[in-house]
Amino acid sequence: MTIEASHSEARAPRIRLGMVGGGQGAFIGAVHRIAARIDDRYELVAGALSSDAERSRASAADLGLDPARAYGSFAEMAQAEAARPDGIEAVSIVTPNHMHVPAAKAFLEAGIHVICDKPLSLSVAEAEELAALVERSGRVFALTHNYTGYPMIREARARVMAGELGELRLVQAEYPQDWLAKAAETEGSKQAEWRTDPARSGAGGCIGDIGTHAYNLASFITGQDASELLAQLTTFVPGRRLDDDVQILLRYAGGMRGMLWASQVAVGHENGLKIRVYGTEAGLEWTQADPNYLWFTKLGEPKQLITRNGAGAGAASRRVSRIPSGHPEGYLEGFANIYTEAAEAILAARDGRALDSAVSFPGIREGLAGMRFIEAAVRSSRNGNSWERIG
Amino acid sequence: MTIEASHSEARAPRIRLGMVGGGQGAFIGAVHRIAARIDDRYELVAGALSSDAERSRASAADLGLDPARAYGSFAEMAQAEAARPDGIEAVSIVTPNHMHVPAAKAFLEAGIHVICDKPLSLSVAEAEELAALVERSGRVFALTHNYTGYPMIREARARVMAGELGELRLVQAEYPQDWLAKAAETEGSKQAEWRTDPARSGAGGCIGDIGTHAYNLASFITGQDASELLAQLTTFVPGRRLDDDVQILLRYAGGMRGMLWASQVAVGHENGLKIRVYGTEAGLEWTQADPNYLWFTKLGEPKQLITRNGAGAGAASRRVSRIPSGHPEGYLEGFANIYTEAAEAILAARDGRALDSAVSFPGIREGLAGMRFIEAAVRSSRNGNSWERIG
Amino acid sequence: MTIEASHSEARAPRIRLGMVGGGQGAFIGAVHRIAARIDDRYELVAGALSSDAERSRASAADLGLDPARAYGSFAEMAQAEAARPDGIEAVSIVTPNHMHVPAAKAFLEAGIHVICDKPLSLSVAEAEELAALVERSGRVFALTHNYTGYPMIREARARVMAGELGELRLVQAEYPQDWLAKAAETEGSKQAEWRTDPARSGAGGCIGDIGTHAYNLASFITGQDASELLAQLTTFVPGRRLDDDVQILLRYAGGMRGMLWASQVAVGHENGLKIRVYGTEAGLEWTQADPNYLWFTKLGEPKQLITRNGAGAGAASRRVSRIPSGHPEGYLEGFANIYTEAAEAILAARDGRALDSAVSFPGIREGLAGMRFIEAAVRSSRNGNSWERIG
Amino acid sequence: MTIEASHSEARAPRIRLGMVGGGQGAFIGAVHRIAARIDDRYELVAGALSSDAERSRASAADLGLDPARAYGSFAEMAQAEAARPDGIEAVSIVTPNHMHVPAAKAFLEAGIHVICDKPLSLSVAEAEELAALVERSGRVFALTHNYTGYPMIREARARVMAGELGELRLVQAEYPQDWLAKAAETEGSKQAEWRTDPARSGAGGCIGDIGTHAYNLASFITGQDASELLAQLTTFVPGRRLDDDVQILLRYAGGMRGMLWASQVAVGHENGLKIRVYGTEAGLEWTQADPNYLWFTKLGEPKQLITRNGAGAGAASRRVSRIPSGHPEGYLEGFANIYTEAAEAILAARDGRALDSAVSFPGIREGLAGMRFIEAAVRSSRNGNSWERIG
Repeated sequence: MTIEASHSEARAPRIRLGMVGGGQGAFIGAVHRIAARIDDRYELVAGALSSDAERSRASAADLGLDPARAYGSFAEMAQAEAARPDGIEAVSIVTPNHMHVPAAKAFLEAGIHVICDKPLSLSVAEAEELAALVERSGRVFALTHNYTGYPMIREARARVMAGELGELRLVQAEYPQDWLAKAAETEGSKQAEWRTDPARSGAGGCIGDIGTHAYNLASFITGQDASELLAQLTTFVPGRRLDDDVQILLRYAGGMRGMLWASQVAVGHENGLKIRVYGTEAGLEWTQADPNYLWFTKLGEPKQLITRNGAGAGAASRRVSRIPSGHPEGYLEGFANIYTEAAEAILAARDGRALDSAVSFPGIREGLAGMRFIEAAVRSSRNGNSWERIG
Repeated sequence: MTIEASHSEARAPRIRLGMVGGGQGAFIGAVHRIAARIDDRYELVAGALSSDAERSRASAADLGLDPARAYGSFAEMAQAEAARPDGIEAVSIVTPNHMHVPAAKAFLEAGIHVICDKPLSLSVAEAEELAALVERSGRVFALTHNYTGYPMIREARARVMAGELGELRLVQAEYPQDWLAKAAETEGSKQAEWRTDPARSGAGGCIGDIGTHAYNLASFITGQDASELLAQLTTFVPGRRLDDDVQILLRYAGGMRGMLWASQVAVGHENGLKIRVYGTEAGLEWTQADPNYLWFTKLGEPKQLITRNGAGAGAASRRVSRIPSGHPEGYLEGFANIYTEAAEAILAARDGRALDSAVSFPGIREGLAGMRFIEAAVRSSRNGNSWERIG
Repeated sequence: MTIEASHSEARAPRIRLGMVGGGQGAFIGAVHRIAARIDDRYELVAGALSSDAERSRASAADLGLDPARAYGSFAEMAQAEAARPDGIEAVSIVTPNHMHVPAAKAFLEAGIHVICDKPLSLSVAEAEELAALVERSGRVFALTHNYTGYPMIREARARVMAGELGELRLVQAEYPQDWLAKAAETEGSKQAEWRTDPARSGAGGCIGDIGTHAYNLASFITGQDASELLAQLTTFVPGRRLDDDVQILLRYAGGMRGMLWASQVAVGHENGLKIRVYGTEAGLEWTQADPNYLWFTKLGEPKQLITRNGAGAGAASRRVSRIPSGHPEGYLEGFANIYTEAAEAILAARDGRALDSAVSFPGIREGLAGMRFIEAAVRSSRNGNSWERIG
Repeated sequence: MTIEASHSEARAPRIRLGMVGGGQGAFIGAVHRIAARIDDRYELVAGALSSDAERSRASAADLGLDPARAYGSFAEMAQAEAARPDGIEAVSIVTPNHMHVPAAKAFLEAGIHVICDKPLSLSVAEAEELAALVERSGRVFALTHNYTGYPMIREARARVMAGELGELRLVQAEYPQDWLAKAAETEGSKQAEWRTDPARSGAGGCIGDIGTHAYNLASFITGQDASELLAQLTTFVPGRRLDDDVQILLRYAGGMRGMLWASQVAVGHENGLKIRVYGTEAGLEWTQADPNYLWFTKLGEPKQLITRNGAGAGAASRRVSRIPSGHPEGYLEGFANIYTEAAEAILAARDGRALDSAVSFPGIREGLAGMRFIEAAVRSSRNGNSWERIG
């Protein structure tokens, strides 16, 4: 029941936050808002919560926002907020994918920090353009690859970085779901509609929605981006316009090899993200549905079950934990860690001080890597499953 | 990825909240504050965060409270806040046990709703006195038996209430931990100090701290309080002043029987609360460390793994869930459900409307039941493990 | 895929074995025969397989026994086999409980080693009488408390004996099943009929059938018999003549305390034997349904999952393992270990050599302890759940 | 505790069995012998247990074989046994791979049934030649792809065949181990030596040793062989002469797709064979280390845990089970099922009667399919991971 250093609660005026998207009927908007609240670093004060102006206002009212700050479009919001002395300092962009870059540009150009959902964009080209703008702007740009916020993922990464696995050989990442096993997009699911629509999702369906999460997690833990891949994208559900299953082989510059499977038609899986990494000296395994556990095995020793904040857990996981071991934290706390880490960067920028080196959150680099991954996979699949350079 | 009805975000001005206890170095105070924030129903505006006035002020500053509302004592706070037009509507009491009743009285008498940590009091007599006051006051009184806030506990209860288990026969509750396996109270752990101090904890150590949680959970799920018990309380760690292990047999009026084990010296357990209920037609099992799962087996049918918001989960668990199945919620979300359910009652009181019958949170009745359980157990143990009436 | 020392296959002429009980329709007879075959130490050559002479002969024919050695009664078999130069050296007694002692006596008096099912007898008095005869006879007497044959139970015991748990504090044993949740004894189940018949089972139902297994396992691992107990035996199924649920508190001379729960009405459990032991320095946990795993946790260290023949498994478990880690052994192999350990003793007796001190199998001492446990539990339950001395 | 129809014990004179290979120091020989004994269908009476004549004789003596039937070579044994009136009816071939076909030929030509370890041969050509001989000989040929003997694998197959999964979409097979993570073949492990020696193992290392098991299991459950594959074989351990990691994409004629991963360097895995199959209506999952469980989920329904001989388990798994649910069977029982199923065929041949259609065991067809799989994988890997037809 003892607890060590962890994300403390706020000690500074909260960051004034706006939100684009996430109005009534959206799923991920509420997640972002809870994530922003958990550690009390943010205060939501403005929103362009829907592309429909009426719904935008109604959604803002639901959330108790000042009606004067319920905007009809992100462009209007960027302009108006930038002009207010008490305008937002940061914005969360939680729209379908095609809106990420236009909205992000508007706010960055207005000097406002950006927290953006993934995947970053519709194309690598668009992503590169945004990356250049982020660089020029000097603003914080965080991408909510939220699974990197789980404490035991930090633990896994720290153990790899410390050399506990020896030389890395293999990474096995998988992300099966079953919510698209039928044609949900024709049965009234708004979530399914835009996620299977190339105009709003881009060239990748399953690969963009969840394949990128799996790939990002592999990169985060191993500290390596793949150099090439070979992909087979499949659309199992008749009439669907994007892939709903993804099989990928990965090669890394240092000799590591990987397999990645993501599926939205794997019946029996709700949100089965799982990652395993094997080195010459040890192996580890983590499953998103049971996120407080990390299996760790040194060659020739018994398997160990490391628990969040429990015996054997190190500083990297403890600093993003809130409560003692045995008291499970979940998806929202992991998501909150991204928000809180980004807040550290935003507050450092506000105060003109250097950022603590322990702070870590995915940003434009990871967004760009994800888009290169998607494009290479689509290319490989179209080319008869050729090996393709990533990036 | 679809999600149905659940705790929505705030639609009304937030409840102005104060806090007693929970200053720097406390564990449970931060938990209460996060729990209060998650669904955005509360705004913390005042505190008597420590019995030490200096620490109280420093803690308030950490939390960004108005210094004018950082009080040196709960009595001062009750009086001052009651006098303000913008005074707190509710207070969270998160002190060691001996302060619960004095503080609760002060706020109830000032017309302020109370959310109080458990166990309720130092004695049944004190609890009964408070119960009378709660009754007279007409104020909301919530007791944070937080484990009843877990969605799958709601699911379990709903299934029992719907008769899916048939006639109940057995309940097996256990709550092993190991954090007091050594004499942590002599090694600088503040948590251990007060929990093993009869003056601050009351006559029960392990039984009050966690035995009551297990008992409360059994009552919540089965809808029954035990009528008598036989207990053996043990102190394993030399020099410890209160029990650190509890073994109990339970009898219920309807013929159900139970066993309850709670321990703070069971090496290998972090927070191993687990409950199993068996009826003539079905059995169920739930484990706190993996709270999104409920095992459910009908006699003669395969075991089923019911998941939060997943297939087979019913309305009772869905309404206290926030995110889709496969995205784990944890301890803080379960705790938040107590806060949010209490908020429903407080808002109904504010608005003078009837409370939705689905709202459920532990209150004075459960607090009283817990104290009767503790006293009967202590009595039984002292009487050579006799059967004792509860209450 | 490497494997170290383990039960080797036979190197000596096989032991000539007879069987009493276990004819057509029996369950446990086939288990004993497979167990006897696995390591090839025995050859079944004679049988009194049923109390019904016709069925006895038919069963013998099924098994390919010489018709001349298919006997109508155990008495006839003991006499006839003792007179043959190639007569049986050992006999397996696999009848309902009431036949154990009469049959065992007949064979011991004929100089034949005995392997007997549990519980030993109908009463302590009968058990003591048999114990005296075993002593006088100098014959091997093995009791098939088969769960002590599981390798990871040997591992657990070895770790306790080596002091790895420190001073023992708690043992939690449970054995829930659900096969008697309805009145199976009135619906044609022969297994249920005799197990719920006091004339054939003795004074204990659930406690004799499976409670003794749980108790025996606790004794085996901890190296201690309880000194006193307090029991509550319940019959949940209307009309049943023996208990179908057992709740027990245990006290051991050295200060250790225990709880034991056995049930045949716990819906959802097939054969849920589980044991946990906690000491000052470590705790362990084993579950019969997953017998190749042993959870082991040192205070303040991560949980370890020790696997049969895997890293960390010691000599005590390795010598009773046959195949590499990751290749699961099961119930029959554990049962076979009892047979093979008994064979070591029988062969040592045959050859007039000392028995390897590593050999371990339950015998008359454990049978007597089990009967004392049953009688004390029945007495306690009848006396209003008093504390009763065991033995 | 009730048990239904299952592998009964012997009702006919046992099959006289010989063995090639499996002498002192071998691992798999003892496994075959136990498997042959469990259901008492076989009697081992002859052996050419080692290619070293001295060791062969010593091994035979260990096993109590008649010295006259301890042969120096399989050729001698085939000839001599065929000439005896009481000669062996069947032979088990448990040598390294390169000996399988020569030995099998010798016995088939002598009219003796063959039970052979896998993989079948060193090449497809050799396998095809043997297949023709098997066909001509009319003898029984069983290949010990033992994992198909597990009851819950039979259950899985039966559910697929019954259409419970709908149209199949995906199969995910994996078989990670870690015993070759270091260069065990240079450190005295005989098992490692021949398994990494192309002369004795053939062109595939990991793929032949365990990849074929995973592939065979996928074929057995789904009822389909893959039509093409794309493979990447890797040798991670410096100096090793064969692959120690295998990544494969599979395509099936009916549109199903699969991934297969096998590795002998995946630290933390002992024998991690696992298979998952997904259809339009349901998905299933089975893990070898916990073989008594089958996870089964219908789309939109809760996950079910089907247990061997438990509720919901069907005839296909019950007929190859021996003991009640909750009493775990393991690797040896699954292996024994192959032996016992083959015995049914041998006994049917002996008696000139038709074979029960429920009997199922892998044979020459599966051996040939395995060799085609290996050769296609090696070819694909050498061709830069091209798609290659299988067969």
